[in-house]
Formats: sequence, structure tokens, C-alpha cells
Amino acid sequence: MVKAVFPGTFDPPTKGHINLIKRGAALFDTLDVVIAVNTSKRPLLTPQERLELLNESVRDLPGVKITLCNKLIVDYAEENGIKVILRGIRNVADFGYEFELSMMNKQLKSSIETVFLPTDPRYFVLRSSSIKELLSFHAEISEMVPPHVEKLLKSKTGGY
Amino acid sequence: MVKAVFPGTFDPPTKGHINLIKRGAALFDTLDVVIAVNTSKRPLLTPQERLELLNESVRDLPGVKITLCNKLIVDYAEENGIKVILRGIRNVADFGYEFELSMMNKQLKSSIETVFLPTDPRYFVLRSSSIKELLSFHAEISEMVPPHVEKLLKSKTGGY
Amino acid sequence: MVKAVFPGTFDPPTKGHINLIKRGAALFDTLDVVIAVNTSKRPLLTPQERLELLNESVRDLPGVKITLCNKLIVDYAEENGIKVILRGIRNVADFGYEFELSMMNKQLKSSIETVFLPTDPRYFVLRSSSIKELLSFHAEISEMVPPHVEKLLKSKTGGY
Amino acid sequence: MVKAVFPGTFDPPTKGHINLIKRGAALFDTLDVVIAVNTSKRPLLTPQERLELLNESVRDLPGVKITLCNKLIVDYAEENGIKVILRGIRNVADFGYEFELSMMNKQLKSSIETVFLPTDPRYFVLRSSSIKELLSFHAEISEMVPPHVEKLLKSKTGGY
Amino acid sequence: MVKAVFPGTFDPPTKGHINLIKRGAALFDTLDVVIAVNTSKRPLLTPQERLELLNESVRDLPGVKITLCNKLIVDYAEENGIKVILRGIRNVADFGYEFELSMMNKQLKSSIETVFLPTDPRYFVLRSSSIKELLSFHAEISEMVPPHVEKLLKSKTGGY
Amino acid sequence: MVKAVFPGTFDPPTKGHINLIKRGAALFDTLDVVIAVNTSKRPLLTPQERLELLNESVRDLPGVKITLCNKLIVDYAEENGIKVILRGIRNVADFGYEFELSMMNKQLKSSIETVFLPTDPRYFVLRSSSIKELLSFHAEISEMVPPHVEKLLKSKTGGY
Repeated sequence: MVKAVFPGTFDPPTKGHINLIKRGAALFDTLDVVIAVNTSKRPLLTPQERLELLNESVRDLPGVKITLCNKLIVDYAEENGIKVILRGIRNVADFGYEFELSMMNKQLKSSIETVFLPTDPRYFVLRSSSIKELLSFHAEISEMVPPHVEKLLKSKTGGY
Repeated sequence: MVKAVFPGTFDPPTKGHINLIKRGAALFDTLDVVIAVNTSKRPLLTPQERLELLNESVRDLPGVKITLCNKLIVDYAEENGIKVILRGIRNVADFGYEFELSMMNKQLKSSIETVFLPTDPRYFVLRSSSIKELLSFHAEISEMVPPHVEKLLKSKTGGY
Repeated sequence: MVKAVFPGTFDPPTKGHINLIKRGAALFDTLDVVIAVNTSKRPLLTPQERLELLNESVRDLPGVKITLCNKLIVDYAEENGIKVILRGIRNVADFGYEFELSMMNKQLKSSIETVFLPTDPRYFVLRSSSIKELLSFHAEISEMVPPHVEKLLKSKTGGY
Repeated sequence: MVKAVFPGTFDPPTKGHINLIKRGAALFDTLDVVIAVNTSKRPLLTPQERLELLNESVRDLPGVKITLCNKLIVDYAEENGIKVILRGIRNVADFGYEFELSMMNKQLKSSIETVFLPTDPRYFVLRSSSIKELLSFHAEISEMVPPHVEKLLKSKTGGY
Repeated sequence: MVKAVFPGTFDPPTKGHINLIKRGAALFDTLDVVIAVNTSKRPLLTPQERLELLNESVRDLPGVKITLCNKLIVDYAEENGIKVILRGIRNVADFGYEFELSMMNKQLKSSIETVFLPTDPRYFVLRSSSIKELLSFHAEISEMVPPHVEKLLKSKTGGY
Repeated sequence: MVKAVFPGTFDPPTKGHINLIKRGAALFDTLDVVIAVNTSKRPLLTPQERLELLNESVRDLPGVKITLCNKLIVDYAEENGIKVILRGIRNVADFGYEFELSMMNKQLKSSIETVFLPTDPRYFVLRSSSIKELLSFHAEISEMVPPHVEKLLKSKTGGY
């Protein structure tokens, strides 16, 4: 049995994230989607809001669990018997950063593997930070996030 | 049950290949190591030699099978109920090429995923073509290939 | 009046090429599509075949002309009063190569500009050399080339 | 008639910017140079100062207009009948970022093209943020900005 | 006689830094290790602490001197008769940034060369900012910094 | 005393090569310029011709010696008491390749360092293979190679 974890900030969760969660869930026996809560950046959504949005998005996926986490991801993995860290890659620049991170995690816990899955081409341009910027311009984001995420985002940024 | 395939030329098989096969075998239920036989480049080893060298290298790994193949890898995967193509990535340049290949394979068969595993840092510099070049200079290659591979290579290139 | 040239090997012309020609024709007053005929690689199609396939593909585009050329592209541009070399870019690796080529062309003729247009995401994976390889495996290529190009390619590679 | 827009922060305008504006003005019928005013970063120069510096720099260029803008650039383009967003590219790292931005803009308004022009090699090292850092060390910047820009920058940073 | 300078923030000094200092000291007649003190980022260690940690690390290396500096590195080099700026490169992303910096420095003082040395593979994953992040998670860092650096870091971050 | 080697094919030697040789000679006590003679590619110039062209180019540089070599460069270095392999880097793509090569050489002989020097911006577009292609189009190459190299190249390719 191979368990995997998909860590991220998910602020907000995008269609790209949900696509990766579905594909990851089909590859491993269980998949923990872990929301990092102690990052220094100012979040748009509270951890609890992100947890609820993700739960609503993956309700029907067996083996998928959403959790909050304020530890190093390798520590979370080790404590939960997880062998695989799953990461999506959109392009070469993403990869450079992720490759280095994977080497650091390997150095911290050599038994845990990082596995990269290429992003679906429909979602190449999706990053949560772009969505936040688009929101500030009241741009259309329905192609980028599921309807229930869009609804919460609009209610939090002035209901335009 | 998730089955994977690890395709390559393996001319010759390196310690980097064998490291990836071991790690891949721990992640998926079965792993077919597939030797591409119809490439246009002039091989150093015959397909049969490569098959035997790999078989000797992975003898004790449950779920691993070595085969020869002269088809598109996505066709091999589909015919064998395989969901995952496993690829090792040594660096950013590797990734650019592999990313594009993965998109082409996704376009050919959308149900098959390419999964990337970062190469172990000990094997970053190992590529089969470098080993062939080093052999032509009679350089030391025992760090790069297992002993039984080194023995065959030396016997074929003049027994230096 | 700004005239542009879109040079390439077009062996074979792909849907990606035709998409770029259409978009380029909308940006400049005239667009010469120039088929390089003296490259050293062994072509699949004769220059004349490529000329006819492209002519059939762009028949309805005003301002577009297909020609054969055995000169440096900057010389062709200068002789024809062309100010812009148009190039499509699919990814970062493409760009590195094209950027260097554009600097060399600028050094040869400083008055001629190279202008880069990003490839439509639907065609990221299309390169003529991949199509040739897929043909050798009798893979499906109808997503990648127009029907009249596919027909000629199949007739030349055994009519599978 | 093809209209283009060249967006940027221009804090401060550099010789590299002015070189691109001249070259862009020669390729398209009109070129709007658009100063983004609502970025979050702390500017060195006020939007009005940047507008005046650019106006002084391009006074003699027919078809070039400098404006302030607090919208998404694709919205500005659509409202003004502009078909082309012009961007300069200095190197591969620039390109990775710009390529992704161009895909996002294409997704927001598919009718608008992003066109990339390679930076003149004399200006490869010029970015506005470097100039700000050099100013803080009282380094020589006359190679990097036009005289009237240098004069204002020096008067604002202590008249060294 | 060729003198070199190795500039950095060294917040904290890592085993990677010390490896580069040793290798650089073997290549040039003297090597000044220069701690940049006026960077805007909030440092973890005071300049004086970094100076002492580095002094303790390189005590036995002839020709190596540690100094604090609040000038442009090319000005420091010129004033001290130094011809070479030494920089370590861990990967392609590092290089893109360093290459551009080297061109800017060449433009400021054309007589001073930047020389790049590849990082030892054991230290590919080491960057000071990662160590700071790991410290905030109380992760193990003894592989990454010398014992006396680890000791000070732990005393400053709560003595865990 | 630090001795360095600058290996290459030099087919033909370019102004970029000569610029690097001059800069390298100023950094190290001696610099051996080593012409690799056993590469598989079809050369334009004989090794002897390249030796003579380089000798004429560096006649006045103390400490510089031109030699032919058919060994691994690390073996040449070790036999001649050389500690440094000098390589020029024109751009990020160059670097990816050179970085990997440097790791392989480090693995073969850990005592020998590879040192990278950025190419002078005037010579970014110069690679010997481009010059060969330009020659086949009878293009102007006097910006790219010294006069005595140009003279020999023209005499060998038809005296155009």
C-alpha cells in the first residue's frame, strides 16, 4: 500500500489543484491533501475556509482526506506512514524550484520520494497568486476556480 | 492496482537506471522495464545483451519484468493495462524534453499518466551516451555501472 | 507598410504552422512563408510538395505568399523589403535557441527585427520531427496536421 | 491598421525601454505606452513623473502616446481597439515569466496577441530595479538612463 | 598576483560557503570574503556575528580575510586591487541570475572579471534562506552548517 | 602557481575564443589551449591548421601554449600538473551542458576544478558551428573571426 500527500497553500484552491488531486488519487492508495497554515504570506482565505472549499471539491473521491498542517511536510509524511510527496509541475521554472525542494526533502528524510505530475495543459496558467491579482481587477475567474470557490472569493472581495 | 512502465534504451544500463527501477518498484504494483529496440542510433549493446544485463540487475525485485518493445510506449502501456509511464529527471534540461514528450503521450492516450522521479544526486552525471564516450577513452567507469555491466562493456570494447 | 517573413522547413506543415501563419497575417501587411530548401537533413517531403501543401492550406489568406528559398533569411528579407522575421515559440527551450538565432540575424542585418509569437497551447507538442517519428509507428496524427497533409504523408509512408 | 500597447511600470524609464518603444513604433501603426499605476510595490517616481519623463523621451515619435492605466492590460487593449501587447525579452528567465503572462492574457481575451521583441544586447543588463539599487550606492547610471531621467533621479535621491 | 573576492550575505554561513572559500583560496593568491551589510532583508545574524562565525571557519586558510562591506562589490574590488569576483553556482536558475549580475558588474567596471565555480554536489540544496525556514520548524540542520554555526543559530532561535 | 587549460575544438577559432584566452591568461599563471583532435564530427579545418591559426592569434601572450590532444581533458590536466579547466559560457543553455560536464570531470578527478567565465557580450552569438553554416551561404564573417582565420576559411570554401 502506497500513501501519498499533496501539500500546498490552496489560497484559493483552483481547478488545476482539483485536477491534480483527482489524478493523484487514481495513482496511490490514499492521498492526504495538506494545507500549510503557517506560511508567512498574508492569506486571502482562512485555513478553515480553504479546508471547507477543498472538502466540497473532493467529496466523492475515495481515499482523499483534507487536513491542516503546521509542520514540515516530511515530518507529516513520516508520522502518517506516507511514502510519496506529490507535486504538480506547470513548466520549466516550476520544475527548477520543485527539484531543489525535493532534494532538500530527500536530505531531511531519505525514505520519502517526491513524485512530479505534469499539469494538465488547460491549467498551465493557473496559479493562486494570479487569481488573487485578477480578483483585484474584478476580472472573470470562472474558468480558473470551481463555482463554489468563485462564490466565496467574490463575497470576500466586495461581491462585485 | 497501479501498473507502471519504465521505458529506455539502456545502452548500457547504468547505476542510475537501476536506482530508478528500485524506487519505481516500491511505488507501483508492477513495473515493466521496457527496452526500445527500434531506435535509429547505432547501439553499443544488442537488445538481447541489454535484456540480460537488466535481468541480472533486478533479479530480486518482485513485480519487475524486463521486456523488449518496438512500439510506441503508449501502445505498449494500453495493451498491458498500464496506467503510468515512469521517467527519471536529472536536471532542468532533461525536464524540458521530458515535459514535452509527456504532453505528446497524453495527447496520444489521455488515460495514461507520466510520472517523474528526480534522479538520486549520486547519479546526476550519468547518461548512457557519456559512458560510451568515456569507454572510448578507456576511462574508469566502475562508479557508473554495475560490475557485470562493466565486464561486458570492456569485453566488447577491447578488453582494456 | 510592414512586411514580414515566416521561415521554416515545413517538413511537414503542421496545424501549429498554419495557426501561426493566420495570426501573423493579421499582424503585418504581407507575410511571406519561406521554405528553406538547402538544409542538410534528409527531408520526408520534397520542397515542391511542401509548397503545394502550404498553398492549399492558406489559399484564402490575403497577403500571404509561399516561396522556396536557398539563401540566408536576412538576405531574402532585405531583397524583398521585409522588416520582420516572425517566429513561433512553444516553450523555454525553443526560446533559448531562437533568441540566439535572432541575435545572429541582428548582427548580420541590424535593420531587420525578429518578432516572437507564442504558440497556441493546443499546438505546444507539435514539432515536425515528432510527426515523422509518430508516422514511423503508424500512430494517429490527425490532430496534428490538416487532412490534405495527412493524406499525402500516409501515401508516402506506405498508405497504412 | 494594427495598434499595439507597450505596458510597464517604467520606474524609472530606461534606455532599454526607449529602444523598445522606437522599434515597436516602427512595426505597428500606433503604440500606446501604458504606465501601470496600481501596482503594490513602492515606486521611486510618481506616475505623473514617469509620464513626463517618457513624454520627453518619445516626443518625436509619430503614433506613440503615453498614458496612465489602472486596469488589466487586456481590458485597456480591448477598449482602445488594440490587437497587440508588445513585450521586450532580455533573456530566458524573462521569457518564462512573460510566456506564462501571455497565456493568461490569451485566456482572458483570446483576440489579443502578445508579441515579443528581443532586447538590444546593449541593454541586456538593464532592469529598473537594478537602477534603483545602483542609485542607493551612488553608482554611475548614465549608461542606463537618458540624461533627463538621470537628472530627476539624482535630485530625488539626494542630489549626489 | 591575482586577488579575488567572494561576496555574500552569509546569514548564516553554510558548509557550502566554506567549501567554496576553500576551493577559491586554492585558485587565487588572496581571497577576501566580503559580508554585505546594507541589504534590505531582515537578517537573522548581526554582521558582527557572521564575521566571527566565518573567521572561526577559515582560521587556517592562508590568504583568506573576512571583512564587512557596505559598498558596491566592484568598488570594493577596485579599491583593493582585486581582479576577480568569485561566485558559486548550484544550478541553472542560480546561473541565470548570476550571469546577469556579472554583466552589470562588467558594465560598471570592465577590468573586473566574474568567475563561476560549480557548487559541490553535496551542497546543491543549501541556501541560507532554506536554513532559516528549517530553523523555524526546528528541523535538523547539522548536515548544512558547521557545529559552531549550528550552536549560535539554536541559541538565537530558542535553544531547541 | 595555478595552471589552467582551455579545451575546445576550435573549428574554426573565433574572436570569442581569443577573447577568452586573453582573459584566462590574465587569471592564471599558465594557460594551455588544447585542441581536441579525436572528436567524431567532420572538421572543417585540420588539427594542424587550427594549431597554426591559434598560434598566430596568441603569439604575444606570455604563459599561453597551444597543443593538440587526443585524451580525456582531466587526464591531460593531471599529467601536466594543471588544476583548472577554463570554460566560457555564453548563455543559460550553454551552462546546463557545461555544468553537467564539470560534474562528470569532478567525478573522474576530484582535484581538478572547472571554472566558468562569462563570454563577452560582443561574442554571445558566436559559435563555430554557426560560422560554418554562414560560410556555406557566403555570408560576411569578418566580425566573428580574426582576419587570418577568415582568409584561410575563404580559401578552403571556394575563395568567394
